Amino acid sequence: MTDALSLPIAELATRLRDGRLTARALAEEVIANHERCGEALMAYSQWAPDHARKCADAADAAFAVGSHAGPMQGIPTSVKDLFAMAGFPTYAGTPRRLPQEFETEGPVIVSLRRQLATVMGKTHMVEFAFGGTGHNAHYGAPRNPWDAAAHRSPGGSSSGAGVSLCEGSALLALGSDTAASVRLPASMTGNAGLKFTKDRWSCDGVVPLSHTFDTPGILARSTADAAFGFAALDPQLGDAFAFLRGVPAGVDGIRIGIADSFFWDGCENGIDEVVRGAIDRLARAGAVVVDTPLPEAREAFAVFSEGGFSAIELRAFLDRELPDWLVTIDPVNVPALKNAENLSAREYLARRLRLLEAGRSAAERFADVDVIGTPTVRLTPHVFAEETGPEKFWARNRGIVHNLVPVNFLTLCAATLPVGRDRLGLPVGLQLIAKGGDDERLVAIACAAERVLGTPREILGTPPMC
Amino acid sequence: MTDALSLPIAELATRLRDGRLTARALAEEVIANHERCGEALMAYSQWAPDHARKCADAADAAFAVGSHAGPMQGIPTSVKDLFAMAGFPTYAGTPRRLPQEFETEGPVIVSLRRQLATVMGKTHMVEFAFGGTGHNAHYGAPRNPWDAAAHRSPGGSSSGAGVSLCEGSALLALGSDTAASVRLPASMTGNAGLKFTKDRWSCDGVVPLSHTFDTPGILARSTADAAFGFAALDPQLGDAFAFLRGVPAGVDGIRIGIADSFFWDGCENGIDEVVRGAIDRLARAGAVVVDTPLPEAREAFAVFSEGGFSAIELRAFLDRELPDWLVTIDPVNVPALKNAENLSAREYLARRLRLLEAGRSAAERFADVDVIGTPTVRLTPHVFAEETGPEKFWARNRGIVHNLVPVNFLTLCAATLPVGRDRLGLPVGLQLIAKGGDDERLVAIACAAERVLGTPREILGTPPMC
Repeated sequence: MTDALSLPIAELATRLRDGRLTARALAEEVIANHERCGEALMAYSQWAPDHARKCADAADAAFAVGSHAGPMQGIPTSVKDLFAMAGFPTYAGTPRRLPQEFETEGPVIVSLRRQLATVMGKTHMVEFAFGGTGHNAHYGAPRNPWDAAAHRSPGGSSSGAGVSLCEGSALLALGSDTAASVRLPASMTGNAGLKFTKDRWSCDGVVPLSHTFDTPGILARSTADAAFGFAALDPQLGDAFAFLRGVPAGVDGIRIGIADSFFWDGCENGIDEVVRGAIDRLARAGAVVVDTPLPEAREAFAVFSEGGFSAIELRAFLDRELPDWLVTIDPVNVPALKNAENLSAREYLARRLRLLEAGRSAAERFADVDVIGTPTVRLTPHVFAEETGPEKFWARNRGIVHNLVPVNFLTLCAATLPVGRDRLGLPVGLQLIAKGGDDERLVAIACAAERVLGTPREILGTPPMC
Repeated sequence: MTDALSLPIAELATRLRDGRLTARALAEEVIANHERCGEALMAYSQWAPDHARKCADAADAAFAVGSHAGPMQGIPTSVKDLFAMAGFPTYAGTPRRLPQEFETEGPVIVSLRRQLATVMGKTHMVEFAFGGTGHNAHYGAPRNPWDAAAHRSPGGSSSGAGVSLCEGSALLALGSDTAASVRLPASMTGNAGLKFTKDRWSCDGVVPLSHTFDTPGILARSTADAAFGFAALDPQLGDAFAFLRGVPAGVDGIRIGIADSFFWDGCENGIDEVVRGAIDRLARAGAVVVDTPLPEAREAFAVFSEGGFSAIELRAFLDRELPDWLVTIDPVNVPALKNAENLSAREYLARRLRLLEAGRSAAERFADVDVIGTPTVRLTPHVFAEETGPEKFWARNRGIVHNLVPVNFLTLCAATLPVGRDRLGLPVGLQLIAKGGDDERLVAIACAAERVLGTPREILGTPPMC
C-alpha cells in the first residue's frame, strides 16, 4: 500500500495533476481499504467500486490530455444518500427508492461531477435525516470504528459519512447539517466537519428535512482536507487555490471567545478538559482567548426542546410529496411527526421570530472575537444496546445535539476538528463557531488551528477497527 | 414655476451636478406643488418641508465643494411610513408611534440618506400594510387625484406614495410590496412601479407584514425615473449610470408572453383593451409577442384565497412585538387576524410547499420569453362610499390584487407602467412580469417599452386634482 491517504488532498491533487499519481491508482487504494475493513463498519448503503473506477479512468483520461476540470478531479468522495446523483437511486435512509424527481442533481453534485471527482458510493444515513445518533430501524447503524468491542454511535444523521473517511474509502464526504448532522458524526468519528451558513450552499437536489435550516456540509480526514473541499465546491469563492494559499500559518492574534457554561456543563469523561487544553495550546501559540457570553444559545436550545422545526417541516413535506413513506417511518419517530399535527402556525411563527431576534443578538457577540470555541459534543458516543425505547432515545438525541443546534438556529456557521480523546478513548472535537456569512474566515481559522494542534491522524492515530 | 418636474430625474441630476439647478430650488418647487393641491389629497402622514429644505441645503453644500454622494443627491423623495428613518417617528398606519426599535434605519434608507436625497416626509399607508384599497380607519384614505368628483381608491397599501408623485411633491416614492402594495397604488394613480425579487432589497428597518413576501419597492412618475431610483439604490448593481446607459432604445426582439385568461377575464371598463392595445404597439415596434400559459398563477391565487400568509405572519409578529397594537386594529381586519389563530403549522407549511413547487414550475415558463404582460389591475379604482362592510371590502381587495399576488407568491419580479385610461378616465397599467432574479433586465425592458409607448405624462396628462 502506498498510503496515499497519509497525504493532504492538496498534495494528492498536485500529484494527480503532474502525473506522479493516477486517479485509478488512488481509487484502487481506497477500494482496497474498504474491502479490508468496510464490511463490519457499514458506511455505505450503495458501495460502488466499479463506478469509482470508471470515474477515476475518466479523470485520468482528462489529465492525460491536459484537461483540468476542477480541484476535485480524481479525489475519492462519498455522498450521503439524500443528495440526488445520476446513476444512484435515492433512498434517504428509507426502505424504498424515492421517486424520480429526487434523483435530479442539484448544484453541489453537479459541481462535484463536473470536476470529475471519483464517486465511491452513497453513505448510510438516518431515515430522512431526522435524528442524530445514527440509529436506522431499516438498515441498522454504521459502527463507530473507534471502539472494536462495542457498537457505539457513529453520530448522525450523516452516519456513514464519517465512517467512510475512517476506513479510508473516501477522502471527502458530503453530508448535510440541519441541527448537527455534519459536525456530530464528524466529531464522533474523529474527523473534521464544516457546517456552512444557511443558503450559502444550495439545497436543490437534497431531500429536505427542514427548509428553514438544512444546509449541505463537508466531512474530511483533516481540516486542511475539508478546506480543500470547501474551496473546490463553494459557489462564492473565486479562486480555490488562492484561498488555500491565503490560510494563515498560525493563530497569532486570532481572537477566540469561550462561551458560558451552557456549552461546558455536563461534559462526560473529561471532554471539557480535552477541549480546554486545546484552546490553551492555541493561546500559547498566540491566539487571544477571552470570555464571550452567548446567552442566545440557551434560547435556541429552548426552541429546539419545545419541538423546533424539523418534525413539522418534515411532516408537511411528507404529507405533500411522499405520503406513502409515512407508513414505514421508524416507530421511534412516529410520535414526533404525529405531535407536529397539533402545532399551530402561530406557535411555529412565534418560534421563528424568537430565533430571528436571538440570531440578530448573537451576531453582535462576534464584534470582538473571530470565533467562539466549544466542545463539539459533550457526551461520549454511546453504546447502542444501552439505548432502549423512544424516551431514552430522544433524551440521548437532545444530549448530543446540545452544542450544535444553536449554530443552525442562530444562523451561524461552524467547524469541528478533532483535538484528543476522552477517558474512554473516543474522539473529542473542538467546535469553532463564527458569525453567519464568515465561512471563509472560519475555514481559514480552523485550518490555522489544526496547524498548531496537529492533524487528526497525529492526535488520534488510527481507529482500532481500520 | 420652472416645471423641473417635466424633466426626467436623470436630467435633473445632471443639472444639479453641473450647477444649473440647485437642490434647494428643486425642493421649493416641489414644496409649492404640495401647498397648491396637497391638502385635499392627503398623501403625507408626516409632511416635512423644513426638513426637506435642510436636506436640499446639505446636498447643495456638498455639490458646492465637489462632493457627489450618489445619484439621489438632491432628488425629492417620499417615504412610506413603515421605513424606519431617523428624525421621523414610525406609525406604520397605526394610531400610535411604534417603539424605538422601529426607528433604526435599514440599508435602503441608509443608502438614500447617505446619497443626500431630499426627504419630503412620510406617506400615508394602510395599517400595517394589511390591505390594498388604501382604506385606513384611523386616518382615512388619500384621494385618488384622477377623479375630482368622487373619493376613489388611490390603491394601497402604499396609499400615499403614488399620490405624492401625482401632486409633484416627490419625484421618487419608496413603498413596499407584499402582495400588490407598490404596483397597485402605482397603477391606480398613473405612476410607474417596481416590485423586486424577494430578498434582493433588504427588509431590515421595514415594519414587517409577511416575512415570507415583504419587499421594498419604488414608485415614480415614469419608468425611466423608477429605473433611476433602482440604479441608485439597488445593492447589487455596480455602476448605476452604466446600467442606465445600457437600457435599449427600443423593444426590437424583446419577447413578451401573453398569459392566459386568468389575468384578462373580468377586466372592467375596457381595461383589457387598453392593455392589449399597448402590447400591440410594442409588437409593431418589433417586440415578439407569443402566448405563454402561466397556470401557476391560479394556484398562487388559490393559496391567497385560502388565507395566504400575511394574516398569520402579521398576527405572530404583533403577538410577539406589538401586542398593544392588536387592541386598536381596524375592525375590518380583526376577523382575519382572529381566524389566523386556527391555522395549523401543517397547513401553513403545506401552502409554502405548494408555492415552492408552483414557483419552480413558473420559472420555467420564462425559458422562451423575457417578460409576461398583463393588466396590472383588472378593476377601476372604486369609490370608497360604495364599499360598505367587511365582506364587500375583502371582495374588492381580492379583486384588485388578483393579477399582482401571483408575482409575490411565485417569487417573480414585476414592473407596472401606465398605458392609458379606462372608460371612466382612470389610469390603466401594463404589468410586465419577469423571472425571479431578472430584475435588471426587467427594468431595462420596462424602460424600453416606455420609450415606445410614451411617458405617463404624455399618455395621461395631469390629474384633474393637481
